[in-house]
Amino acid sequence: MSERKEFRDLVPPERAREVIAGLELGGGTERVPLDAARGRVLARRVDADIDVPGFGRATVDGYALRARDTFGADEADPARLGVVGDVHTGEKPGVTVESGTAASVSTGAVMPPGADAVVKVERTTREDGEVAVRTAVAPGDGVMAAGADVAAGERALGPGIRVTPREVGLLSALGVDEVPVRERPRVGILSTGDELVRPGDPLEHSRGEIHDVNSYTIAASVEEAGGEPVLYPHAGDDYGEMERLLREAATECDLVLTSGSTSASAVDVVYRVVEECGELLLHGVAVKPGKPMLVGTIEGAAYVGLPGYPVSALTIFRTFVAPAIREAAGLEEPPTERVSGEMAVRERYAEGRLRLMPAGLVERGDGGTLVYPVDKGSGATTSLVEADGIVEVPADTDYLGEGQPVEVQLFSPEVRPPSVLAVGEDDPAFSRFLDAIDRPRFLPVGSGEGLRRLRDGVPDVAVVAGPTERDVESVELGAWSREWGLVVPPENPAGVEGLADLVDREVRFVNRNRESGLRASLEAAVSELADDRGTTAAGVTDTIDGFELTRRAHESPARMVEDGEADAGLGLRASSEALGLGFVPLGTQRVRALANPDRAGKAGIRDLETAIADGTVLDTLAGFEQ
Amino acid sequence: MSERKEFRDLVPPERAREVIAGLELGGGTERVPLDAARGRVLARRVDADIDVPGFGRATVDGYALRARDTFGADEADPARLGVVGDVHTGEKPGVTVESGTAASVSTGAVMPPGADAVVKVERTTREDGEVAVRTAVAPGDGVMAAGADVAAGERALGPGIRVTPREVGLLSALGVDEVPVRERPRVGILSTGDELVRPGDPLEHSRGEIHDVNSYTIAASVEEAGGEPVLYPHAGDDYGEMERLLREAATECDLVLTSGSTSASAVDVVYRVVEECGELLLHGVAVKPGKPMLVGTIEGAAYVGLPGYPVSALTIFRTFVAPAIREAAGLEEPPTERVSGEMAVRERYAEGRLRLMPAGLVERGDGGTLVYPVDKGSGATTSLVEADGIVEVPADTDYLGEGQPVEVQLFSPEVRPPSVLAVGEDDPAFSRFLDAIDRPRFLPVGSGEGLRRLRDGVPDVAVVAGPTERDVESVELGAWSREWGLVVPPENPAGVEGLADLVDREVRFVNRNRESGLRASLEAAVSELADDRGTTAAGVTDTIDGFELTRRAHESPARMVEDGEADAGLGLRASSEALGLGFVPLGTQRVRALANPDRAGKAGIRDLETAIADGTVLDTLAGFEQ
Repeated sequence: MSERKEFRDLVPPERAREVIAGLELGGGTERVPLDAARGRVLARRVDADIDVPGFGRATVDGYALRARDTFGADEADPARLGVVGDVHTGEKPGVTVESGTAASVSTGAVMPPGADAVVKVERTTREDGEVAVRTAVAPGDGVMAAGADVAAGERALGPGIRVTPREVGLLSALGVDEVPVRERPRVGILSTGDELVRPGDPLEHSRGEIHDVNSYTIAASVEEAGGEPVLYPHAGDDYGEMERLLREAATECDLVLTSGSTSASAVDVVYRVVEECGELLLHGVAVKPGKPMLVGTIEGAAYVGLPGYPVSALTIFRTFVAPAIREAAGLEEPPTERVSGEMAVRERYAEGRLRLMPAGLVERGDGGTLVYPVDKGSGATTSLVEADGIVEVPADTDYLGEGQPVEVQLFSPEVRPPSVLAVGEDDPAFSRFLDAIDRPRFLPVGSGEGLRRLRDGVPDVAVVAGPTERDVESVELGAWSREWGLVVPPENPAGVEGLADLVDREVRFVNRNRESGLRASLEAAVSELADDRGTTAAGVTDTIDGFELTRRAHESPARMVEDGEADAGLGLRASSEALGLGFVPLGTQRVRALANPDRAGKAGIRDLETAIADGTVLDTLAGFEQ
Repeated sequence: MSERKEFRDLVPPERAREVIAGLELGGGTERVPLDAARGRVLARRVDADIDVPGFGRATVDGYALRARDTFGADEADPARLGVVGDVHTGEKPGVTVESGTAASVSTGAVMPPGADAVVKVERTTREDGEVAVRTAVAPGDGVMAAGADVAAGERALGPGIRVTPREVGLLSALGVDEVPVRERPRVGILSTGDELVRPGDPLEHSRGEIHDVNSYTIAASVEEAGGEPVLYPHAGDDYGEMERLLREAATECDLVLTSGSTSASAVDVVYRVVEECGELLLHGVAVKPGKPMLVGTIEGAAYVGLPGYPVSALTIFRTFVAPAIREAAGLEEPPTERVSGEMAVRERYAEGRLRLMPAGLVERGDGGTLVYPVDKGSGATTSLVEADGIVEVPADTDYLGEGQPVEVQLFSPEVRPPSVLAVGEDDPAFSRFLDAIDRPRFLPVGSGEGLRRLRDGVPDVAVVAGPTERDVESVELGAWSREWGLVVPPENPAGVEGLADLVDREVRFVNRNRESGLRASLEAAVSELADDRGTTAAGVTDTIDGFELTRRAHESPARMVEDGEADAGLGLRASSEALGLGFVPLGTQRVRALANPDRAGKAGIRDLETAIADGTVLDTLAGFEQ
């Protein structure tokens, strides 16, 4: 093991920003075809090298003539001129206009020699070889002089301009078909860790394999910040290979990012490579998450090591790395990448480091935005889509008060607050109602926790199933019922007939978690059985094999039965039918969608209410009804 | 000629929007690789088909054990367990944890069979084959259960979701490497008109050729709206070819756009094709610009004909076509595509049709945004980059008052107001000062017009050269001087020595326009000469061949001398040196950058002041000094 430095002196976050801003991330110039220039940034100013138009150009359909010949002409006394010919757009004039004559011209045509104005056709009358002009015109009327639009030698566009369609238009007019733009910094992304498998490849669960989340996420973020991501193959646990890839990436890219391997030895490889062929600029920043952030150079390329948890990796990228990539690409932070809001809840904090707090957004319905903390460091990927961005909480903060104004730095300029924030029971009908509305967010926290959160005022809607312990002031948006019971293998080979069989026979059962409404209904049934038998609920559940083996999602026990890991699972008839399993009904329960009364006017809530009222979804799910 | 309908009954703009919204623009589903999914819109919901994680996973480095074995353990009385082995991340556990034993595990490792919790390494002490556990843990501590993050069967992402980096992350976690997204509508773009030449190809000015501006501009706008542009070859005036291309585009695309040929016959071809193999849905809309808008279908594809002037084409595209493309692509209008402001000037209007008024933006410096009308229908491409967007002025409006609140629909979500709006004298030094600041806008309207506009309160800065007729309250940001005179061919073959030679000899002269400061200095010199000779200024100028032949840009007269079209041109020593020509000095003049006093605090103005003060640019331009 190399002599790894301890994180004794964490540098302040501002210093980390400075160090990263000081890294050299390219910034050269390349030429791209005009049709690929949109969104790029001009590397230098573009001057016109031609006049636009390049010739005196008729701007109306009419007659090219000498203005002097029309002086005094009016409706009563038109000027009569001999027509010497026509000039069409896109052709060289074949006539010359002398005094007393005119030539018919189309809009866009070259002014024939001798003419200095064009009279609109509407103000003329053609009579055989003559035209009567019923108005006087001045020299230059109806003509755009050569260079009147853009003159050769004029500054057309400045350096640093982002090319949008209108700039494409001006470049087109100037005949520029190759545009000098800032190079996009090339950003190499290496995933390390023997357990990581690229999405699309199968996982071997028994070895603890998981999909590599950070590589594509960071690649997409690099692209969004104006860089060009380059994914390198996965080196796994082969440190020789990892070292080779790090050097290769450093040679080919302006910046190399790794996202934290969970293995200490992998960090050591990075450390050794940085020390051997680069420079270590900092190691350890007083920030949460991201404390062990490593910044340096390898073979002249910049290097930043990101944390391994997806939300943490995205947070550190957003805060420290994206600004440097944008700067190198010549881009500004998009204005939609920050929103203001106020804290929905009080959040304690006292760690003495800058905290980059992942936060979700919910709209109050009166235009205000509430901000709530998300992810307590679990490393869950679902936190990725629950969090909309981050709030920087300074190190000297004790807490953020409810209602305190905060600024959220969004994870992407494309992130929008959800139209509805719903929490609670994981229910297949509700999940389909959500499909009918735009941008909903649902957090499957169970009925009990859903009700608690609704009471605390954060979500718009709680979905609640089965018996509940508390009442929360709310507006019912709709309700439906679902049949629940025991999901068993096809044909019910063990002949399970009801709850009593779980108690009396050798049946491997799998339960749902305590927060779920299915569990609440099951416990009510257990109490009833206990009463019948003159024992306690605990007396019943102690004899059920697997009563404490719980799963969080509605279909999970059924899938364990499908996989042969259990003989019976708590679940819905709908799940058993979806998976082709057997089902022993134990009852039906109501599922209710309850809205926060203050938010009842929100558009998303009304859309959800409509979707529930429609109810055709219920016909497609076994055991569901209105 | 086909029987073309007259634009008698212009349909209301709302009806045109409805008709276009009713067009079928695709909307199918395609599968794209995960690394190409960013920015796309999910075509259908994505449910998890695996548990994440797929196994019980240690979430800390430490010892996997049975929680029950730690009950009662504390610092004073640790639990001592026999260590049966190690489980590394990414490998299958080779040990089973029985009561009284523990296995060392890394974060991310698979929980070994028998263990139900992990104690953090920090709370343990390793002593040879034993570990002392100094705290009690509960079942599940330090473990993420299979499916705890996402459970198989759960709804992961809904239809219609725009994929940002965080959605890429969730899809990665689910192992999704091909993402079902909405197809982008294919939009065919045809340019018609015999005078049009693709950017990059040379122009024949004598035939009146100009570069095709609309094709690439509209293509870039299509892309920005979420469509896939397809450029078709230019058919010129060959109507057979044009008809063939229209049909080809209609077969290959969801929508075909043409942008108005100036030729009536080209419109007739479109007309005939629409009537023969499609349906004419509307022709003529009560809107300015865009009255002759044609909407229909060809071979089942949608068809819209756009106006020919670049600003008009972009305006009609932005207003009527982009929303339909976005809708088909499943995208919302970006929130940055509209800004609010107030009218900088009074704008009269009385045409009885909806007016889509091109408008420029300028920031007041106090956070407010002023909006001013741009482009009076000249068809200039420079209007494209002067206008930031459009203001919809309803048909029943008589005027927009100064200060009236208006909403500007930007030409692109990437459009930002300029940091500085400068107007006035076209000066090579000033144009280089602009290169040093971000996002300036300069309109070369000449010194006289520049001063008038500064007085009227729209621009931030006026650049003024030479003698001026008026005084406007302003703050001088900086000033410099430049040498002016007559630009002549190399070696001055005609031996022109001064102004008198233009009067007394046969010299073809080319002047600058009346608004320019150079012209003002020249006229002062003419008056002096007239006084010397005891005649009038007009007496002098009448005898100068070409005194009325004027060019708008500072280098244009010099370029005419270079091309042999004139013997002497009013200009700067800097221009003559840049083009390798001769120069006859007539004097020096001051150029001043004058700021609107109310805007002096604007960041862009301060940046400009700094750039002028630096002044190193002046050393690079002949005849310029501080």
